[in-house]
Amino acid sequence: MVRIAIDAMGGDFGCKPIVEGCSLAIDLAKSGGFEFEPILVGESTQILTHLRSDLHKKVKIIEAADTIAMSDHATDALKRRESSIYKAVELVAKKEADAVVSAGHSGATMSLATLKIGRLKGISRPALATLMPTAIEGKKSLVLDVGANVDSEPKHLFQSAIMGKAYASQLLKLENPRVGLLANGEEEGKGDKLVKESFLMIKELREEGFNFVGNVEGCDVFKGEVDVIVCDGFVGNVLLKTSEGISEAIVKVLKRAAKQSFLTTVGALLFRPAFKTLKQMMDYDEYGGAPLLGINGTAIISHGKSTPKAVLNAILQAVRFAESNVNSEIVRYLDRYALKGEN
Amino acid sequence: MVRIAIDAMGGDFGCKPIVEGCSLAIDLAKSGGFEFEPILVGESTQILTHLRSDLHKKVKIIEAADTIAMSDHATDALKRRESSIYKAVELVAKKEADAVVSAGHSGATMSLATLKIGRLKGISRPALATLMPTAIEGKKSLVLDVGANVDSEPKHLFQSAIMGKAYASQLLKLENPRVGLLANGEEEGKGDKLVKESFLMIKELREEGFNFVGNVEGCDVFKGEVDVIVCDGFVGNVLLKTSEGISEAIVKVLKRAAKQSFLTTVGALLFRPAFKTLKQMMDYDEYGGAPLLGINGTAIISHGKSTPKAVLNAILQAVRFAESNVNSEIVRYLDRYALKGEN
Repeated sequence: MVRIAIDAMGGDFGCKPIVEGCSLAIDLAKSGGFEFEPILVGESTQILTHLRSDLHKKVKIIEAADTIAMSDHATDALKRRESSIYKAVELVAKKEADAVVSAGHSGATMSLATLKIGRLKGISRPALATLMPTAIEGKKSLVLDVGANVDSEPKHLFQSAIMGKAYASQLLKLENPRVGLLANGEEEGKGDKLVKESFLMIKELREEGFNFVGNVEGCDVFKGEVDVIVCDGFVGNVLLKTSEGISEAIVKVLKRAAKQSFLTTVGALLFRPAFKTLKQMMDYDEYGGAPLLGINGTAIISHGKSTPKAVLNAILQAVRFAESNVNSEIVRYLDRYALKGEN
Repeated sequence: MVRIAIDAMGGDFGCKPIVEGCSLAIDLAKSGGFEFEPILVGESTQILTHLRSDLHKKVKIIEAADTIAMSDHATDALKRRESSIYKAVELVAKKEADAVVSAGHSGATMSLATLKIGRLKGISRPALATLMPTAIEGKKSLVLDVGANVDSEPKHLFQSAIMGKAYASQLLKLENPRVGLLANGEEEGKGDKLVKESFLMIKELREEGFNFVGNVEGCDVFKGEVDVIVCDGFVGNVLLKTSEGISEAIVKVLKRAAKQSFLTTVGALLFRPAFKTLKQMMDYDEYGGAPLLGINGTAIISHGKSTPKAVLNAILQAVRFAESNVNSEIVRYLDRYALKGEN
């Protein structure tokens, strides 16, 4: 059974939504379909306050007196051995858990996971991957890196292309995922220095049947015609935040516009199911969290503002990832593709 | 009277929308409020076919037999002296026109404008600026660079901060515009190498009363709480295309969702005025074009798919820009701010 270490403390809203999300996951597991062993890491008195009494015996609690705040430096996290995130990551490093889920300080989680759990053979830098909505129903695209690394080198994007392919084929169950390189134009030769050099490296994978579709643009992320989009973490973060920002602006404008007249108000009411569909599509909670790809284990980074539903989905993602062959496939691919981007 | 050289040929839909947009501008000018002298550059037979006969005498036509296609290389444009864009830019360079408007090959237009018209004193690289919609009614934010340069150096972002301020204060009439640096987090110290170094340079302007608000994120572009957002052209292009892409995806999802049931269809009909408000907010046509800042003149780059309305707005923008003090303010600011980012 997959053991999931859950940082119960670090989120923006404290312990409550995390513990409640864990409870939802236990309930769902009971109703069938999957199994997992929850390990909540944090202050036991707080955890027990929020945990339904019938679940007290179903959850393992690891005491952690310290919590890394969002305002703390990621580097400090490496020294604070009593913190919930440190202890949660350590469980995976010691093979006492198979995956870690955290809605806490993402920089701290990424640094700790990279250093304590370690990188996969052939990976220089792990990358944070996130699923993005597309205009095609039920179709999501995977973007990486969305914030683990800045100032990437071509070998990092090369490795991201391989990690993205492995994730898409193993977890999104895509036959031969289409991998694109994010650029400022579709033509070969577009891009900044990093993208141009990365293009030449990734292009060579085509000889091995790797489905590299070449350069793609920011708009292509949402068309659903490419499965994996590779970029530097600075650029990916801008992409992610831009899409969040414009979505929020559109919702605000529509809400304001609904008040234009009596008829638009009625229209908005009748149209509500359609808005709900849109909300689901854009809903971060549905995604749960972003996997940190390239470490020798499983780490799912959730949003600090995660609701119980988001935590549930992050746990589900952690279970599926830990049970999958993503990591062994990454190592196999890197090996097979002659390790252009050596460690 | 401001003389506007209009590349009549290079757009995706040929000469027709450009000439029609020019006609709209002449009509609007006649009804009062502004004046300009239109100079259409291209194949006169084609131009005259699309030009209303009552306007034939109101428009100056400069013959140009060649047209740069979207698929041509920007560098080729420098040699093709008979092309409409070459001749249109040349008119500004020779002071026979005050501004150039083109919906043609944007790379060609930018290269030609930079080389033929020349850069302002103190500017190393011109930057393409675009207005973005925000959640606040009537409020737009200016993002630059959105594609003129990649692989920027700190001095380029420093100069963009100053150019953005000049545009916002002169043309958006903002008292002391808030200028932000696009990063992957709000805290000082966030960013890639370029952003971190640029931060330190731009920060020094604060001593002079420059309203540098520090790092901003992709989502801040659409909140309306910052007026000017500075970034490298690769990143700005990703931001622009991402916002276009997600907007299109949202519209598609809402259209599909409208068909969910009879009630949602009725709701969508009643809600139509609200969608129209949204459409206007997101409508590229409303913006008309993007000014190329930092050249010793005025160049407005329009979308290849510009409608007559977009061309009209681009001409309006060109007139306002050419009549403004943006360029002299840029030179004055650069001079005053001790020219950290020297040419």
